[in-house]
Amino acid sequence: MAAVAQDFSAEPAAAKQTVTHPLAPLTPSEIATTADLLKSVWPANADLRFKIITLDEPPKKQMIPYLAARDSGSPLPFIPRKSFTSYYIRNTNRFHEAVVDLSAGKVESNVRLGPNLHGNADYEEILMVEKNALEDEGVKAAIAKLQLPEGTAVCADPWIYGSDGINDDERIFQVFLYMRDPANSSELDSNHYAFPLPISPVIDCTDYKVIRIDYLPTGADNTIHEPRPYQAKPANEYIPEHHPLREDIKPLRVIQPEGASFSLTPTGETGHVLRWQKWSFLVGFNQREGMVLYDVRYDGRPLFYRLSLSDMSIPYADPRHPFHKKQAFDLGDAGAGVMANNLKLGCDCLGHIQYLSAHFTDDKGVPTPFENCVCIHEQDAGIGWKHTNYRTGRAAVVRNRELVLQSIITVSNYEYILAFMFNQAGEVIYEARATGILSTQPVDHELDQVGVPFGTVVHPGVLAVHHQHIFSLRVDPMLEGHDNRLVYDEAHAMPIDKDWNPHGIGYTVSETVVEKSSGIDLDTSVNRTFKIQNASIRNPVNGKPVAYKIHVPDFQKILAHPTSFHHKRAEFADHNIYVTSHQDRELYAGGWYTNQSRGGTGVRSWAQRNDNVKDTDIVVWVQFGINHVPRIEDFPVMPCEIIKVSLKPVNFFDKNPALDVPPSEQSFNQSTLVAEQHHQPSVEAVVGKDCCVVDDAASKSKL
Amino acid sequence: MAAVAQDFSAEPAAAKQTVTHPLAPLTPSEIATTADLLKSVWPANADLRFKIITLDEPPKKQMIPYLAARDSGSPLPFIPRKSFTSYYIRNTNRFHEAVVDLSAGKVESNVRLGPNLHGNADYEEILMVEKNALEDEGVKAAIAKLQLPEGTAVCADPWIYGSDGINDDERIFQVFLYMRDPANSSELDSNHYAFPLPISPVIDCTDYKVIRIDYLPTGADNTIHEPRPYQAKPANEYIPEHHPLREDIKPLRVIQPEGASFSLTPTGETGHVLRWQKWSFLVGFNQREGMVLYDVRYDGRPLFYRLSLSDMSIPYADPRHPFHKKQAFDLGDAGAGVMANNLKLGCDCLGHIQYLSAHFTDDKGVPTPFENCVCIHEQDAGIGWKHTNYRTGRAAVVRNRELVLQSIITVSNYEYILAFMFNQAGEVIYEARATGILSTQPVDHELDQVGVPFGTVVHPGVLAVHHQHIFSLRVDPMLEGHDNRLVYDEAHAMPIDKDWNPHGIGYTVSETVVEKSSGIDLDTSVNRTFKIQNASIRNPVNGKPVAYKIHVPDFQKILAHPTSFHHKRAEFADHNIYVTSHQDRELYAGGWYTNQSRGGTGVRSWAQRNDNVKDTDIVVWVQFGINHVPRIEDFPVMPCEIIKVSLKPVNFFDKNPALDVPPSEQSFNQSTLVAEQHHQPSVEAVVGKDCCVVDDAASKSKL
Repeated sequence: MAAVAQDFSAEPAAAKQTVTHPLAPLTPSEIATTADLLKSVWPANADLRFKIITLDEPPKKQMIPYLAARDSGSPLPFIPRKSFTSYYIRNTNRFHEAVVDLSAGKVESNVRLGPNLHGNADYEEILMVEKNALEDEGVKAAIAKLQLPEGTAVCADPWIYGSDGINDDERIFQVFLYMRDPANSSELDSNHYAFPLPISPVIDCTDYKVIRIDYLPTGADNTIHEPRPYQAKPANEYIPEHHPLREDIKPLRVIQPEGASFSLTPTGETGHVLRWQKWSFLVGFNQREGMVLYDVRYDGRPLFYRLSLSDMSIPYADPRHPFHKKQAFDLGDAGAGVMANNLKLGCDCLGHIQYLSAHFTDDKGVPTPFENCVCIHEQDAGIGWKHTNYRTGRAAVVRNRELVLQSIITVSNYEYILAFMFNQAGEVIYEARATGILSTQPVDHELDQVGVPFGTVVHPGVLAVHHQHIFSLRVDPMLEGHDNRLVYDEAHAMPIDKDWNPHGIGYTVSETVVEKSSGIDLDTSVNRTFKIQNASIRNPVNGKPVAYKIHVPDFQKILAHPTSFHHKRAEFADHNIYVTSHQDRELYAGGWYTNQSRGGTGVRSWAQRNDNVKDTDIVVWVQFGINHVPRIEDFPVMPCEIIKVSLKPVNFFDKNPALDVPPSEQSFNQSTLVAEQHHQPSVEAVVGKDCCVVDDAASKSKL
Repeated sequence: MAAVAQDFSAEPAAAKQTVTHPLAPLTPSEIATTADLLKSVWPANADLRFKIITLDEPPKKQMIPYLAARDSGSPLPFIPRKSFTSYYIRNTNRFHEAVVDLSAGKVESNVRLGPNLHGNADYEEILMVEKNALEDEGVKAAIAKLQLPEGTAVCADPWIYGSDGINDDERIFQVFLYMRDPANSSELDSNHYAFPLPISPVIDCTDYKVIRIDYLPTGADNTIHEPRPYQAKPANEYIPEHHPLREDIKPLRVIQPEGASFSLTPTGETGHVLRWQKWSFLVGFNQREGMVLYDVRYDGRPLFYRLSLSDMSIPYADPRHPFHKKQAFDLGDAGAGVMANNLKLGCDCLGHIQYLSAHFTDDKGVPTPFENCVCIHEQDAGIGWKHTNYRTGRAAVVRNRELVLQSIITVSNYEYILAFMFNQAGEVIYEARATGILSTQPVDHELDQVGVPFGTVVHPGVLAVHHQHIFSLRVDPMLEGHDNRLVYDEAHAMPIDKDWNPHGIGYTVSETVVEKSSGIDLDTSVNRTFKIQNASIRNPVNGKPVAYKIHVPDFQKILAHPTSFHHKRAEFADHNIYVTSHQDRELYAGGWYTNQSRGGTGVRSWAQRNDNVKDTDIVVWVQFGINHVPRIEDFPVMPCEIIKVSLKPVNFFDKNPALDVPPSEQSFNQSTLVAEQHHQPSVEAVVGKDCCVVDDAASKSKL
């Protein structure tokens, strides 16, 4: 570890460092060393099942002087390199967390956790759960009652059990069963979600055996009827060979003949500093959050200490057992890093692409490569700004180039396409695209044309239940320093006043400072807009504090009752914005251990400390989401549903920061004309500013 | 007119037509004929000032059987070709509107309008107002008091006067004055909005003379002080030669080596039927609305009879005279068609482009070409859908190709980039980008660092006042027929019930039918979602009525008091959604004549008819907008602010309509790898479905 000397600073001029960046992900050897050191504190015959081995990020009180020293070119303070681990004693419920000081080569802490704290799922375990569920004699007998066609292949989708407080102190899996299209049972990629079965084995997590078989309600109420014999029905495949494909879509290619505009500088074995169009940041990638960006700066000015998707919760609407427990926390229950797709050139990203890879532990403590889990590329996002002077006909126009860091995660049936984007106007955009396959369950054919009010029939005998996707983006700001505040603006009509507002049209904007840690909501009726501000740094032109505002779409807060486990567990799902004082270990909005969690350990609880959050080190948690009422068009795989969150400068610069983007010109863009006789002007590629000058009638501009 | 025989039908197989499509824009000769016929009914010495000569769209009761006959291949009924005109007797306040029957070669109606109905601005008039304002001796004397540097160039920006009910029965212009940077006064493209002057001439519209000079309040209250001598200050230019430009942005090019995927079929001289990826529609373009799409179908299935941006209103927040009257209705006051930029290849659209042009009248009735007012191209919009089977590692992924029809309008200082987009999942998107230069006014330098609550200081001595942009998209649906309804879904928590919802997590979705014409609002707290439905056509799989839902971001409704002219005039600005029964002449949400309008003639008034809107021919008006609280980053030209409205199928198809999009493959996309030694996998271009198959550890997917 701590191998290669690299420059990771925002400023190329800064002193070269001889150690790995303190925030760079663990190296494979650091993962292996962690496992070895932990094993060494146990008897030789102890078998550890590792859940996570990840960087234990240094406390901010160490990192602030470190970054300051780096920026000033001073000698760097020593920061010990540490790892964080959670693990089980294999085939027991004994769950531990540990910190290993890698610099000192010793286990720093190692404690048993519990009760009601459980580790995330791991891949080896999932495979075992699938296998054991399908090989269980009781399950086989239950399946036999369905009289499935000869040779039918049954699939098991293990689900995190959820919480209802009923006999769920131990770690358990709920398994949903499906079958592949019996008319085509050799097709391994047949969409089994079109064939859900009404049987659900429950598996414990010490010996991974079936402890119960749940029968699923399939009617309009919570009656469980005897499994009925399978009734033949059509398949509903998403793989292309099952469809006559469109033949009229022509290739569209993105080329960058002079290469990419960004540079990626390795810092040690696992860190990368990305620089693009005045932006710089360290790209991290961990098992739980996937992409994490640190030390985000624009033109050298500090903006964000750390940015990441912190959590997500997906509560389902079906009130019936066992569906009432369906509530995924995909990051905490499994991990956005460890679920990341291996992205393929030409398939997942268009254009001129760079990939990043990672290593995570397997269940035995062996570092495992995860190739191409992030793709980095630039994209054209249309016009950035334009103005035409109608007097001269001269247009000034620039395009909006964006830098994209994209990671795609597969969560069993479902996919999320997650991206950080940066533009030339100083804006950061976080985009989440929801796609993949709906989680389905069986419904009686009698209800196909009638439906139920908590779901949509998307295929004969197939119900897709309504569910909410609620995300939490963690924004740890350092706008021109670490002491920041959260404020919100509101626009209010001025009262009619015969002297001051006689015509009743005036309105003003007020600013309110959030003094204490809390959850706060958007209010479109007053155009409430949240801003992160540094009140001690003023804009030189207008004297206003420098700020970044948060553009986030409103969403319906979690519908589950405040007394429900769904509500208690999704500690972030009830407010658009939370603000807390910074605490090093408060990284995940739903708490550190979400699997079968009981609540009380996430951002709602932290906010209740009622801490001062004015002009101090704060963290802002930005929630967004969708209430997904399935359409039949979302099956068998859904067109992307897109949500964007933007962080935009407000009086942070002294003018449009994209003013120095070179003009959009044909010599640079080399667009082409569609060959067509009708209404085509004669066009020549004109080089230089005159390209966009127009002096004919069509450029006329009126009021 | 009615010249070339063309096939304009959605179905290529339909019978060829021998006449121009009844909804195609007027041809130049139709414009000229209209002017000639109108002049012929007046004495030879009458001088007509034409404001608009546009297609008088046939009544729907004629068009419905026409389209039905076309679809069935039956003989087409005759529909007379007509034009609509508004005009003044030049240099008088006598304002008329007329309909000319071009097929019959006669004036069908010709009536004088008024009082308080006024025509839109025209380009020739704007130039005259500028000139006369600057040549007025009183204005010159007022300017002299400012003691501007020798050789200073003063600019006049004529504004639509607005309404306050005080001596404004006649048509008037309010003119705002600026100067170009006196240090650089020969630069015709200097940004004069950085140098606003405190003098505002008012000009009447019969002889276009100055009738009053307003002095502007420049302090924190409404005191008018004597004009002070000009105080030197820096310029704030947007043209590129005034900035050191970034040199590190590399070219990014979009190429379509096999050409475009769309086809554009002329229908007559001015109509174009566009076909792309199962979509078909007629592209219209008129002086007021710019782009209008007619007869929009997907896979031959009727969706929308007519789609257009119907209106916009931009009320400003400064309560002081004369700013209290600032409220632009850019479509009705001038026209989105006639303000359209002449788009330049390589500047305004990237990739493989086709342009459309138009003709509008000038003030004398002469048809004038407007070249390249629409650009049409395809764009890649990221991943369309994806699923990875974690058991096999096989990924199925398609990209989301979009078709874009874009038009850019310049409204004096400001720009709007307006686009209709279509994708392969049956979705229509309307996108508005706001850019250009803020409308500015002078503010005393003493306030530079203090500000005022109704605006932002964006440059020394320059105030940009808060304002709302409120748009109205007119959606005239024909979902599988002309009898449609508007419904809205809401998601509600189920009450806790020990049998049915014991865990308090259930929720259901209800649907409410809108029975009567009305204005209705979004309500995120219940996830209220509007859908246009055909209740008589059911989805074959789940029995639900076919529908399209409206995804539109909420916005703060107009802040001006309900008794104010701002509120009365912006008849659409108070509700997210209006629904009315279809009436042929009800095209513009703010009424037919918005210039100095008094209200009472737009969608709010039509809704008050309390018409039945259930299962009949309805029109849905979708409002969206921004409360623009200026940032200094919005000056001297603002980075685009983007709003999108989507129309998406809901149980209209029987599965994801983009399922037949060919897979995203390297052989088709030809992406390239950034040359880099670090963490790059070896990649070969693999053809066929295997491209996206992944079988290593990184493809593992967990819960």
